[in-house]
Amino acid sequence: MTRPSGRAADQLRDISFEMGFSKYAEGSCLIKFGDTHVLCTATVEEKVPGWMRGSGEGWVTAEYGMLPRSTHGRMRREASSGKQSGRTQEIQRLIGRSLRAVCDLKAMGEIQVRVDCDVIQADGGTRTASITGAYVAMYAAFQKMREEGKLETIPLTCEVAAVSCGIFEGTPVLDLDYDEDSNAQADANFVLTGSNGIVEIQGTAEEDPFSQDEFMQLLSLAQKGIGELAIKQREALGLE
Amino acid sequence: MTRPSGRAADQLRDISFEMGFSKYAEGSCLIKFGDTHVLCTATVEEKVPGWMRGSGEGWVTAEYGMLPRSTHGRMRREASSGKQSGRTQEIQRLIGRSLRAVCDLKAMGEIQVRVDCDVIQADGGTRTASITGAYVAMYAAFQKMREEGKLETIPLTCEVAAVSCGIFEGTPVLDLDYDEDSNAQADANFVLTGSNGIVEIQGTAEEDPFSQDEFMQLLSLAQKGIGELAIKQREALGLE
Amino acid sequence: MTRPSGRAADQLRDISFEMGFSKYAEGSCLIKFGDTHVLCTATVEEKVPGWMRGSGEGWVTAEYGMLPRSTHGRMRREASSGKQSGRTQEIQRLIGRSLRAVCDLKAMGEIQVRVDCDVIQADGGTRTASITGAYVAMYAAFQKMREEGKLETIPLTCEVAAVSCGIFEGTPVLDLDYDEDSNAQADANFVLTGSNGIVEIQGTAEEDPFSQDEFMQLLSLAQKGIGELAIKQREALGLE
Amino acid sequence: MTRPSGRAADQLRDISFEMGFSKYAEGSCLIKFGDTHVLCTATVEEKVPGWMRGSGEGWVTAEYGMLPRSTHGRMRREASSGKQSGRTQEIQRLIGRSLRAVCDLKAMGEIQVRVDCDVIQADGGTRTASITGAYVAMYAAFQKMREEGKLETIPLTCEVAAVSCGIFEGTPVLDLDYDEDSNAQADANFVLTGSNGIVEIQGTAEEDPFSQDEFMQLLSLAQKGIGELAIKQREALGLE
Amino acid sequence: MTRPSGRAADQLRDISFEMGFSKYAEGSCLIKFGDTHVLCTATVEEKVPGWMRGSGEGWVTAEYGMLPRSTHGRMRREASSGKQSGRTQEIQRLIGRSLRAVCDLKAMGEIQVRVDCDVIQADGGTRTASITGAYVAMYAAFQKMREEGKLETIPLTCEVAAVSCGIFEGTPVLDLDYDEDSNAQADANFVLTGSNGIVEIQGTAEEDPFSQDEFMQLLSLAQKGIGELAIKQREALGLE
Amino acid sequence: MTRPSGRAADQLRDISFEMGFSKYAEGSCLIKFGDTHVLCTATVEEKVPGWMRGSGEGWVTAEYGMLPRSTHGRMRREASSGKQSGRTQEIQRLIGRSLRAVCDLKAMGEIQVRVDCDVIQADGGTRTASITGAYVAMYAAFQKMREEGKLETIPLTCEVAAVSCGIFEGTPVLDLDYDEDSNAQADANFVLTGSNGIVEIQGTAEEDPFSQDEFMQLLSLAQKGIGELAIKQREALGLE
Repeated sequence: MTRPSGRAADQLRDISFEMGFSKYAEGSCLIKFGDTHVLCTATVEEKVPGWMRGSGEGWVTAEYGMLPRSTHGRMRREASSGKQSGRTQEIQRLIGRSLRAVCDLKAMGEIQVRVDCDVIQADGGTRTASITGAYVAMYAAFQKMREEGKLETIPLTCEVAAVSCGIFEGTPVLDLDYDEDSNAQADANFVLTGSNGIVEIQGTAEEDPFSQDEFMQLLSLAQKGIGELAIKQREALGLE
Repeated sequence: MTRPSGRAADQLRDISFEMGFSKYAEGSCLIKFGDTHVLCTATVEEKVPGWMRGSGEGWVTAEYGMLPRSTHGRMRREASSGKQSGRTQEIQRLIGRSLRAVCDLKAMGEIQVRVDCDVIQADGGTRTASITGAYVAMYAAFQKMREEGKLETIPLTCEVAAVSCGIFEGTPVLDLDYDEDSNAQADANFVLTGSNGIVEIQGTAEEDPFSQDEFMQLLSLAQKGIGELAIKQREALGLE
Repeated sequence: MTRPSGRAADQLRDISFEMGFSKYAEGSCLIKFGDTHVLCTATVEEKVPGWMRGSGEGWVTAEYGMLPRSTHGRMRREASSGKQSGRTQEIQRLIGRSLRAVCDLKAMGEIQVRVDCDVIQADGGTRTASITGAYVAMYAAFQKMREEGKLETIPLTCEVAAVSCGIFEGTPVLDLDYDEDSNAQADANFVLTGSNGIVEIQGTAEEDPFSQDEFMQLLSLAQKGIGELAIKQREALGLE
Repeated sequence: MTRPSGRAADQLRDISFEMGFSKYAEGSCLIKFGDTHVLCTATVEEKVPGWMRGSGEGWVTAEYGMLPRSTHGRMRREASSGKQSGRTQEIQRLIGRSLRAVCDLKAMGEIQVRVDCDVIQADGGTRTASITGAYVAMYAAFQKMREEGKLETIPLTCEVAAVSCGIFEGTPVLDLDYDEDSNAQADANFVLTGSNGIVEIQGTAEEDPFSQDEFMQLLSLAQKGIGELAIKQREALGLE
Repeated sequence: MTRPSGRAADQLRDISFEMGFSKYAEGSCLIKFGDTHVLCTATVEEKVPGWMRGSGEGWVTAEYGMLPRSTHGRMRREASSGKQSGRTQEIQRLIGRSLRAVCDLKAMGEIQVRVDCDVIQADGGTRTASITGAYVAMYAAFQKMREEGKLETIPLTCEVAAVSCGIFEGTPVLDLDYDEDSNAQADANFVLTGSNGIVEIQGTAEEDPFSQDEFMQLLSLAQKGIGELAIKQREALGLE
Repeated sequence: MTRPSGRAADQLRDISFEMGFSKYAEGSCLIKFGDTHVLCTATVEEKVPGWMRGSGEGWVTAEYGMLPRSTHGRMRREASSGKQSGRTQEIQRLIGRSLRAVCDLKAMGEIQVRVDCDVIQADGGTRTASITGAYVAMYAAFQKMREEGKLETIPLTCEVAAVSCGIFEGTPVLDLDYDEDSNAQADANFVLTGSNGIVEIQGTAEEDPFSQDEFMQLLSLAQKGIGELAIKQREALGLE
């Protein structure tokens, strides 16, 4: 088996973070997983949703969108069709849950962080790139708050990152791009912490069901990949 | 650890299927997982969605809803709020994928099966009960078509069923009810075939990330539970 | 003239109430008018709509829905089409008005009762079955409040029930089922109190206008039918 | 009892029709029931709804709206709130049914008439004025078609008109205006043909249920009033 | 060049104002620019939008709509299609800005004026007629408030009126009607004050771009036309 | 008067075009007017809207959006609020008209170009930057079609570009940034061709009306600025 991109089975695409891509956001980065480019911005708001007021705790939420021509053919603009698709809602709920899993909401105090993940260009793995970049944007926003004396410590317990793995032409491979994704027999998205704790797993058989053994191989690839992503996240944030 | 319901850690709730609950649907059942009751109806339509016409293949799709007072407090009616929530869309997409995973779409010919899963009463696990019941309703619809001479064989490759597992007070347990679900540290929904092939896994850490080891224990519980569910499905369908 | 069901012209379908069908609702019943089955649940809320606050009076409102496969062919799910049809709104407004007509809103105090009428199976007369069952569910909710010491007396002045009558093959008949309804020359829904007071009348000529005489015959049939329904309501509530 | 307007109990308000109020519509009138003014326009379209194509029959449909400041206080504009209220839908369905009841759809051939009833000023009875004016606008459109040789005869079997009656301070009165309507104990809308055939009856008790006897008095008033309205319709159309 | 209407190039259509057309509105007029008829009503509300509360200033806003059969063919009713078109929103924003440009919001105090412009019949220039009539309706509402002692002076600094000009068959002409508008090479809407101050200019080349010189000729025609409109506005308000 | 940015009154911001920013679009550029950054992509579709089919002519349309955190504070995402604002619709209609004004729709043949303008960062003048960049993206798409032999010549008659001018602290200035825009007494957007033909003018007085003289100064600044923009457009396209 040769991957269309020529990568080894356990090799990530080129990963990069362009920090501070947005002039206004409290934290931001343009994350690239190869040709998948996502702009992640973190907005800090002084108030939490109504149902949390007075709790002393903070909240983190996320929204996700794709520019109409981020894809091979043009997609319909969701603002114009008047609603977000099921897929969009599913992804933004996943991003929010993933970020909250490593957030110390009590330590945040009553603020809300809204992370926007907007796909500028899509070549597979937009949700995993979004989570990986969203963490960095949120961390940067907290760094800014600490510099401004609004926070004493960064209220994050660990890195969180995500990657997709799948079975392509019978072989488990790491970090599917679009060509692989559209032909994979199985496809799983893993959201893990930097110390390999499981935050979220979503595995789907595309055609035939897959075995426990195959699933374990995918998880193992994900652990390797996310270990590398966590290092790159720390580098981007100037922590290594 | 004692489960609120007094069940053993690896014990399902009482499971039952009331076949033919709906007078009009081609196939239907009222499935009960303890106090979780879901009405599943399968409708056979002679035409497939536009993008499939002429392909010679069939299609299966699902919709999910909850009656407003199926829950402890009353939920807002989605028809009245004017849109389906992200959660609803996520679930109905999951049901559809799960059913298609065991369907031989080519063998169906150009027909569409629409399965509606309507929660009459909810006590945790509505999505897993929906998948388990939807399979039975769809099978019954195919049986009816076979009796009417419209199909020669049932175009299904295997049973598909689903169950949720989670870590409750430190212990992995099978088939969470609402009391457990709202206090579980981790929660995973498994969709497996009757022969233990993995169709879909969705695992979410509620608070702290969970370990690979814990995840394997949940998977193991799910395999046991789904083995039992598949037997009950066959019994309900008069196949055992 | 022979009715498709073999019933006499002034004969109701088999009527039954399954009390407490819902585990959570303050009051509930599954009402059956023959093959028309409607789940009615009454939810008691401690607060009234904004425009009533401080008035010291209560409010009663209703919502109505049909499960997609409650009908011969599958109907589109209203939650998915994004709005309630004109017919749905018309019916739920009618149910609400009918209930309020026998409610002593002052005696209720500042609470709101929301009644949900969800059609599980439809064979004609879903709106009249809904009203008849909604009264019973609401009464049961008030009984529960009285038992809990939240109300001293049931704030209802009289039973309210509904039935449709129509002219089928030239003969006025009581309680139309679907076969009759779709072929009736005239169709009228009567909402009357247990003591034959008129709460609401909606009569519609399907093809040719009908005469005052014919209308009086329909009203007379309705009075007989509703007298019987009121007895069954009291029986279901343990009042006779 | 003295009516606020000084009218006798069985006296209509001043009724007038300003024919041809709209320059473009195939038929139109501005109907006035006292201070209630409704612009009714009939549009003839060469094609029928999809489900009727090839049937050889025509169709009649209606829409209803109120200008935001047609009322005492300003109402929200429905186009701006993004949907038509339940009341609006109820009324436009009623207008459509009423018109179809006197239309010979077969004789129309495959055309559709859309009648728009837009309330310019509202002082009670907008739905009954709408029906009464809609008939005239539709008749005028058919007259124009006959003049143009597109129809041989007017495909209408009889006049149709509507009026509301109610019990005001204990006395049954004809043609309620806003002052009366908001204080009536009972309120019924009657849609009758020019020869007193019943097309539609909608009676509602506002507070206490009303008796069969009271209802008969309202029907009798309506018969008198609609007799007068039918004469005015014929005069407006140049038929008397 | 002869204009279809026979008017001189710099000649307005017949302009008239029917004051007090609406019985309930604080100020109203039916303005006619030839066959373009717009009902303008001004509603005074005691409260301003949330973001202005406590500012001591007032606010003016406008809504615009067209009756479905105000046009040659029938337009779809916006309330029924569920949203206002881009064109509608553009026009109502323009009307609001134009009115605010001549309003002394401080002098108004914390009240809001809502002006509704509803097109009864359209023959080109509905937005310019709307602005011209809206000013008069708003002025009349202020007059009423002054009479009632709620305002000491009319908080308006100047008249505001609008007219469209365009290049028709090579010649700049004033106040385009529908026949001219649909064939004009260029079309510009001018909103000017009674003293020829520029409030808003919207010029659009329909086919070929137009020159600065042509534009100046259109502006010059507009200045003449608006001078005349301002006189008619004052006459309608009894100020001359 | 000193401009906040230190620019001369008739000086544009730094303008740049990053061609081919999108990997998939037929034509694309990231245009920067100082800190205003807009991604413009042109998509070529083989089919035109229904109402143009068979006409032999092409069509050009545009959509506009802002990323939620393109602005100082976060804006609500339009896809999530379920509709495009009036402002958004106004802008995208303007972009479409501007592009069509320089397009030879007949020479295009029956294809449609959809231009998406998505604001990545906003510092005033997003609509003018969008038009200026959209022209370049569309031109690039036509170049690609010519290279592929699908077009013989570029079906554009002239450059089109846009700039805003306004009166800031009493002085007319070119190309307002956000600081100036929010304090300008008057604000006008000019869309001109490379040869100074007027395509669209939208001028608005923010507070006091402005004079004809002031307006002429703004137009004169715009002519200078657009002359410079047209040169930069040709450079970006490799035409100079």
